[in-house]
Amino acid sequence: MQKELNIGLFGFGCVGEGLYKVLHNSGLLKANIKTIVVKNRDKKRSLPAETFQYDANHILNDAEINTVVELIDNSAEAYEIVKQALISGKNVVTANKKMLAEHLSELLALAKEHKVSLLYEGAVAGSIPIIRNLEEYYNNDSLSKIEGIVNGTTNYILTQTNLGKTYQEALKEAQVLGFAESDPTLDVQGFDAKYKLAILMKHAFGVAVEEKELLNVGINNLKPQDVTYALEKGYRIKLIAKAQKFADSIVGFVLPQFVTANHAVFNVNNEFNAVAVEAAFSDKQLFTGKGAGSFPTASAVLSDVSALQYQYKYEFRKSYTNRAVFTNNFSLLVFIGSNDLDLLERLPWESIQEKLVNPSYSYVIGRINVSDLKALNLNSNPNLSVIALPDALEEESLVRANAEQESISAAF
Amino acid sequence: MQKELNIGLFGFGCVGEGLYKVLHNSGLLKANIKTIVVKNRDKKRSLPAETFQYDANHILNDAEINTVVELIDNSAEAYEIVKQALISGKNVVTANKKMLAEHLSELLALAKEHKVSLLYEGAVAGSIPIIRNLEEYYNNDSLSKIEGIVNGTTNYILTQTNLGKTYQEALKEAQVLGFAESDPTLDVQGFDAKYKLAILMKHAFGVAVEEKELLNVGINNLKPQDVTYALEKGYRIKLIAKAQKFADSIVGFVLPQFVTANHAVFNVNNEFNAVAVEAAFSDKQLFTGKGAGSFPTASAVLSDVSALQYQYKYEFRKSYTNRAVFTNNFSLLVFIGSNDLDLLERLPWESIQEKLVNPSYSYVIGRINVSDLKALNLNSNPNLSVIALPDALEEESLVRANAEQESISAAF
Repeated sequence: MQKELNIGLFGFGCVGEGLYKVLHNSGLLKANIKTIVVKNRDKKRSLPAETFQYDANHILNDAEINTVVELIDNSAEAYEIVKQALISGKNVVTANKKMLAEHLSELLALAKEHKVSLLYEGAVAGSIPIIRNLEEYYNNDSLSKIEGIVNGTTNYILTQTNLGKTYQEALKEAQVLGFAESDPTLDVQGFDAKYKLAILMKHAFGVAVEEKELLNVGINNLKPQDVTYALEKGYRIKLIAKAQKFADSIVGFVLPQFVTANHAVFNVNNEFNAVAVEAAFSDKQLFTGKGAGSFPTASAVLSDVSALQYQYKYEFRKSYTNRAVFTNNFSLLVFIGSNDLDLLERLPWESIQEKLVNPSYSYVIGRINVSDLKALNLNSNPNLSVIALPDALEEESLVRANAEQESISAAF
Repeated sequence: MQKELNIGLFGFGCVGEGLYKVLHNSGLLKANIKTIVVKNRDKKRSLPAETFQYDANHILNDAEINTVVELIDNSAEAYEIVKQALISGKNVVTANKKMLAEHLSELLALAKEHKVSLLYEGAVAGSIPIIRNLEEYYNNDSLSKIEGIVNGTTNYILTQTNLGKTYQEALKEAQVLGFAESDPTLDVQGFDAKYKLAILMKHAFGVAVEEKELLNVGINNLKPQDVTYALEKGYRIKLIAKAQKFADSIVGFVLPQFVTANHAVFNVNNEFNAVAVEAAFSDKQLFTGKGAGSFPTASAVLSDVSALQYQYKYEFRKSYTNRAVFTNNFSLLVFIGSNDLDLLERLPWESIQEKLVNPSYSYVIGRINVSDLKALNLNSNPNLSVIALPDALEEESLVRANAEQESISAAF
């Protein structure tokens, strides 16, 4: 029943090295790392240079290697490696969320065609076993919502700005502590969270959404005034990735959100991640753990490798039953702050609930369509900070979406 | 690949009825409830009387039924039903933790012998999928500790007493709200938590422990003075079920514990459950959700039924690799309060750290051996309230245990 795994490992950074040590020293698994391929010949590593190869074909063309573990940084190269590995009939474990979000459908189709597994628990929320749970445990419970904090870098920064630091101070601190990269764009603009959300939506609802379709607004444009507003109301600002299923529609987006004290993730601080799952039957569940870092990710990778011993595959059972359609055509209740009142007022509001006019900083709270928000390209607009209200998403907001969808269905 | 399930259902209380409705109305599963057996002919039920049978053999002797879902209250009767069902070659899903804890080894052996599944996710922490995660996800990560709040009744009562209510007031309130039974003994004396702990230990560490071996001290003897002490120190009192693995030893117990604000379960209040898992590699994980009630339990049962479609079985892989031995021979740092100073001082302390002498209420903080605590039969001793300190369990406390174990091993 147990399959002997012969592993080809790409990448020997923190995660790769951690995995290597555990596999070699613990004897926990029937798995052997046969070949390690790395890119840079000159980098100092903890193992002798002759341990490493520098050409991907040393793994990809080796028929004895039945399992590829891909742990490199570059998502374009990772894509080529994973694709070739699947085509060569090798199982693949990866943690590269950008690569996965961009090519998920194609890669899963390849895995199916070549009858191999593609597993990637480490790609979403580090050591929190959320994909496995969505696949296995929530398979037949009618899931209605999944939301959470899936990016540790931004959660660290927001935790610190909630305590009074400026965004720049908090970002620098995160970089010093190793929680943020020198170019933090993918994290602070919500791209990383969006990649993970696209993957989660596939497993939670069986819907394949191109990551480009999903709205992502990050935290880089938040102002101290926004934080002050939150504190006055008893809120904390969190960067939330959220997907929800209504009767015929599935929505999903990444936005800063005001979170109330009774919200599941209110106390999830610093580099921690958390994912809340809501199902008709099982009520709310919260999974909390460390989302990033070498150990949490290596742990998830190890668990995937372990599952391969038993020929584990994701089944995507919800893909076969889901009839709901992804849409961005719904309205959200949001707070938008700016020092440019004119700009604020010219936004395509559907309705306005509250407006504060102040020479130095104004805000509007109102409903706005997500397609319109998306068109505003908000990450590149430092004069607008957008934060969803706690009750931003209500079923009524989908009325318009559903009506339009019906007319679309009728046209086919 | 998918197996058609023909279900015989025992019990039609909240959980059974909920499960029936979901299976019949949702079409989520390829599963059909063929026969429902209940005990009481006269009870009013939401389905017509002719839907029900009253003799267990209507299910057990029906060769067409391949799956038994057992959801009755009486654990002795549940045991007979489950045993017969397994012997008849039927898969079994149950949520009866008392029955499981008392007969786990025998029932698992029967399931193995007759090549059927025995699943029981609903028996531990309601809708939190902890058993499945221990089985599947933490299979190859070296788990070091599992602890949590696994009884919603006592957590509700403790949450209320932490807010200033007396134990009796809080218990009555819990009973009115349906969180506590009219005879709350199994809950408030920590038996329910202990049954669950025994099951968790089997899956977490691969060790079979008779529930009778585990120390369980409940909350029924806690005094307002204990709560006051906790509040002064910034602690909350929680009823914690905990198991930890050291090099050669596994310990486990259920005790009220002072929990600090940075502890994972500090904010897990009222009827919520939470289980924290610590592994060498994945660091700390916390699973939070509703532990009891018809829906969370039905959700877990549904998930088990769903897994049976794919011939899922628990594998207990850790049972084959575990070499550590369960022991009660280790010391814990505990607070013991009493209005009887003499009694307090006569306890078999190994060492004393602090003593408060007061005519109305005294306490001692010190180390005491768990075997000795167990012999004190503390649930029946209203003059002693025992609460573990936050750092109650340290590796040094096992020195004596290990030394003795070695001499035992040497004798064989």
